[in-house]
Amino acid sequence: FMKLKKNVAEFANKVKMIGKDDPRRITHSIKVGITLALVSLLYYFSPVYGGFGSSTMWAILTVVVVFEFSVGATLGKGLNRAIATFLAGALGVGAHHLATLAGKEGEPILLGLFVFLLAAVASFSRFFPGIKARYDYGVLIFILTFSLVSVSGYREDKIIRLALHRFSTIIIGGLSCVVISIFVFPVWAGEDLHKLIFTNIEKLGDFLQTFGGEYFENFEKDGVPKDDKKTLLHLNGYKTILNSKTAEESFANFASWEPPNGGFGYRHPWKQYLKIGMLTRQCAYRIESLSNCINNSQVQPLEFKKIVQKGCMEMSIESGKALKELSIAVKTMRHPDSVFTHLKNSISAADNLKSSLRTAKMENTNIFELIPAAKVTTLLIEIIGCISNIVDSVNELSRLAKFKGAETTATSVDKPKPQLHHEETLNSVTVETSSHDNATHAIITVCALSTALESGILEDPLIL
Amino acid sequence: FMKLKKNVAEFANKVKMIGKDDPRRITHSIKVGITLALVSLLYYFSPVYGGFGSSTMWAILTVVVVFEFSVGATLGKGLNRAIATFLAGALGVGAHHLATLAGKEGEPILLGLFVFLLAAVASFSRFFPGIKARYDYGVLIFILTFSLVSVSGYREDKIIRLALHRFSTIIIGGLSCVVISIFVFPVWAGEDLHKLIFTNIEKLGDFLQTFGGEYFENFEKDGVPKDDKKTLLHLNGYKTILNSKTAEESFANFASWEPPNGGFGYRHPWKQYLKIGMLTRQCAYRIESLSNCINNSQVQPLEFKKIVQKGCMEMSIESGKALKELSIAVKTMRHPDSVFTHLKNSISAADNLKSSLRTAKMENTNIFELIPAAKVTTLLIEIIGCISNIVDSVNELSRLAKFKGAETTATSVDKPKPQLHHEETLNSVTVETSSHDNATHAIITVCALSTALESGILEDPLIL
Repeated sequence: FMKLKKNVAEFANKVKMIGKDDPRRITHSIKVGITLALVSLLYYFSPVYGGFGSSTMWAILTVVVVFEFSVGATLGKGLNRAIATFLAGALGVGAHHLATLAGKEGEPILLGLFVFLLAAVASFSRFFPGIKARYDYGVLIFILTFSLVSVSGYREDKIIRLALHRFSTIIIGGLSCVVISIFVFPVWAGEDLHKLIFTNIEKLGDFLQTFGGEYFENFEKDGVPKDDKKTLLHLNGYKTILNSKTAEESFANFASWEPPNGGFGYRHPWKQYLKIGMLTRQCAYRIESLSNCINNSQVQPLEFKKIVQKGCMEMSIESGKALKELSIAVKTMRHPDSVFTHLKNSISAADNLKSSLRTAKMENTNIFELIPAAKVTTLLIEIIGCISNIVDSVNELSRLAKFKGAETTATSVDKPKPQLHHEETLNSVTVETSSHDNATHAIITVCALSTALESGILEDPLIL
Repeated sequence: FMKLKKNVAEFANKVKMIGKDDPRRITHSIKVGITLALVSLLYYFSPVYGGFGSSTMWAILTVVVVFEFSVGATLGKGLNRAIATFLAGALGVGAHHLATLAGKEGEPILLGLFVFLLAAVASFSRFFPGIKARYDYGVLIFILTFSLVSVSGYREDKIIRLALHRFSTIIIGGLSCVVISIFVFPVWAGEDLHKLIFTNIEKLGDFLQTFGGEYFENFEKDGVPKDDKKTLLHLNGYKTILNSKTAEESFANFASWEPPNGGFGYRHPWKQYLKIGMLTRQCAYRIESLSNCINNSQVQPLEFKKIVQKGCMEMSIESGKALKELSIAVKTMRHPDSVFTHLKNSISAADNLKSSLRTAKMENTNIFELIPAAKVTTLLIEIIGCISNIVDSVNELSRLAKFKGAETTATSVDKPKPQLHHEETLNSVTVETSSHDNATHAIITVCALSTALESGILEDPLIL
C-alpha cells in the first residue's frame, strides 16, 4: 500500500512538472476537451443531426485528429484535411461514375484498379521531402476519401449527398478547432520559434561570458584544476542546441501556416530563422569542444598563461556580450546596433593576441604543456568567426522582417555584395571563412560600421 | 512548351532519384495500393458487406492510416489502434449507459462532461514523453472512439452491435496491413537502425583513415595548403551523423514493436544501439572540429611538423582502422576482437607522441605557428578517447545481443567493474574520460586483452 502511495505521489509530481514546464499544455488539454464536447453535442441538436445524419461523426473525427498544440499545426492540418477531402471527393465521384459505365462485372475490377493506382502513386509522393514536410496529412486524407467515396456501393445521387455532408461536417469540425485555437489562449508556433532562436543565442552568450573566468580561475588558486560540478551544470545550457534542428524545422513549418500575429507580419521570413539556427548550432559544436577544455585543463607554464589569459578572457567575455546583445535584439525585434562594439572588441582582442603570440619567443618551453591553452585560444578565435556569421544572418533577418532601426542601416546591407552561401554543412562555412576573400569580406561586412577595423584582422589566410 | 517539357523531365528525374535512393519505397507504394484495393473490394463481397454494413469503411480507414513504411511502425500503429478502440469502445458503452440513467435532460450534459474530461486528460497525457513516443496514436484513437461510441444517439443494443462491427473491421484492416507488411518484401526498422549505426561508425573510420594523409600532404608539396574541394567532399560523409539522433530514436522505437527477424531475436537490445549512436555522435562532433583544420592548415615550422606528423598519421590511420573493424563487427554481428589491436596501436602512437612532445624543447619557435598542428594532435587524442568509449559500448552490445564469439571473452566483460554512466551530455563523457580513475579504467577495460598496455597511457590525469 505504501508503494502504491509512493507511485501515486511520483505520478502526481510528474504531472505537475509537465504542467509547470509549459502551462500552455494545461490550457491546450482543456481547449481540446471543450471543443470536442461542443462538437459531440451537435448530435443532440436535432436541426443539425437531422440535416447531416450520421455524418456528424466526421466532425468529431476531425476535431480529434486536427486539433494540435499550436495554431500553425492546427491550421495546417485543417487546411490539408479540407482541401484533400474536397479534391478526393470530387475525384472519387468521377471514378465511381466511370466504373458504373463498365457494367456489373467490370465495376469492381475497374474500381480496384483506380484505388490501387491512386494509393500507390500518392503513397510514393509521400517520400518527396517537400510533400512529406507540409502535405503528408493531406495526401493521407486524399487516399482515404477517394477510396471511401469511389468504392461505397451507393447510387450516385446518394454519393454526392453523402460527400457533401461529410465535407460540411469536416468543415464544421475543422473550423471549430481553428477558431478555438486562434482565439482562446493561442499558442503560436512562430512565437515559439522566435523564442527558441533567441534563447539559444543567449545560452551561447551565457557560456562564453562565464567560460573565460572558469577556465583561467581553475589555475588561479593552486595550479591544479578543481572539479567543480556546479559550474559545469551552469555551463551546460548550450547542450540542447546541438540537437535543436528537428524542433526548429517543425516550428518553422507550422509557423508558415499561421496568419499574421503579434510582431510577425504576413510572410515573416521564417526560413531566415532556420539559417540563424543552423549557424547557432555550428557555434555550439565549437563551444562543445571548448567545454571539454574546462575539465581537461592542466598545469600550465605560467609564462604562456600570461600571454594568452588576458586576450582569451577578453575574447570570451566580449563575444559573450555580443551574443547576449544579439539575443536581445532578436527578442525585441530591433536592429542589432549595439552588437558591433562588442564584436569589434572581441575581434581586436583576437588580433592582439595573435600578434603577441607571433612575437613571443619562448625558450625552453615544454610544448606539450602549451597545447591545452593553445587549443582554447584557437577555439575562441574560431567561435568569433561563427559569431560574426550569426550577426550577419541576424542582420539579414532584421532587414527581411523590417526590425526597428533596420532602415537606417539598410545602406550598409543593401549595397551589392557577393552573397555568402551558408548551407547545412559546417565545412562549407569554414571553407568560406577560411578562404581569404570571403572571410575578410564577412568580417568587413559585419564591421562596416566600425571602419577602424577594416584593415587588420584577417591578413592571415585563416582564422586558424 | 519547352519549359513544360523541362519541368516534366526534372520531375521524372526527381522521381527516379527518390526511387533509386531506396527501392523499397517503390515496393512500399505498391504494397499500400494492393492492400487498399483488396480491402476496398470487401464492399463488393456481399457476405462481408452484408455482415458489417457500412462499417466496412473502418477497414479502409484503418489500412490508409496504419500502413507505414516499416513493419515496426505498422505493427505499432495497428496494435495501438486495435487496443485503444477496444478499450475506448467498452468505456464508451459504459458511459452511454450511465448517461441514459440521467434522463432525457441530463443525458447530453452528462455525456458532454464525460467527453470533456476524457479528452482533456488524454490530451494532457500526450505530453508525457514516454506516451508521446510509443502510444500517441493510441491515445488519439482512444479519444476518438470514446466520443463516437458514447455520443452516438442510438439505443444500447445497436451501439454494442455497431462497436463490435467497427472493432472487427478495424481488426480486418489492421491484420491485412500487418500481414502484407511482414510477408511481402518486409522493411524492418531494426535492420535499418542496425545499418545506420554501423555505417555511421564506418563513415567516421573513412574520415580518419584519409584525414592524416590529407592534412599532412597538404604541406608536402609546396608548404602552402592546396584548396582541394574534391577531398573535402570525399571526407564529408560524417556530417549526416551530427543530426542523426531523431532518425535513430524513431527506428529504435519502431524496432521495439517488431517480432524476431533475421539476426535480431526477441528483446534485441535496441536501446544499446542508441547508446552507441550517441557516442558516435560525440565522436563526430570532434571530427567536425578536425575537419575544420584541413582547410585552415597553414605554413608550419618544419621542425615541429617532423615531431607530430608520424604520430598523428599513425593515430589517424589506426583509429580509422579500429572504427572500420568495429563497423564490420557490428555489421556481421561478431564480437569485435580484431579491433583491439588497432585501438592499442593508436593508443600507443598517442602515448609516444605525448612523450616526444614532452621532451622536445624547441628554441626560437614561433608559438603562433605551432598552434594548428597542436590542435590536430589534441583532437586526435580526444578522438581516440571517444573511440574507446564506442568500443566499450559495442562490447556491451555484443554481450547483450550474444554476438558470435561474445561468450569466449565474456570473462573480461562480466567481471565487476564500476559502470560508466554515459548520458546524452557530451561533457559527462569527457568528465569521465578526464577524471583520472574512470578514464584509466575505461581504457584498461578496453585493452584488458592486451595486457602489454595496462601500464602507461593514462598516467597523465587527462587525455587532453
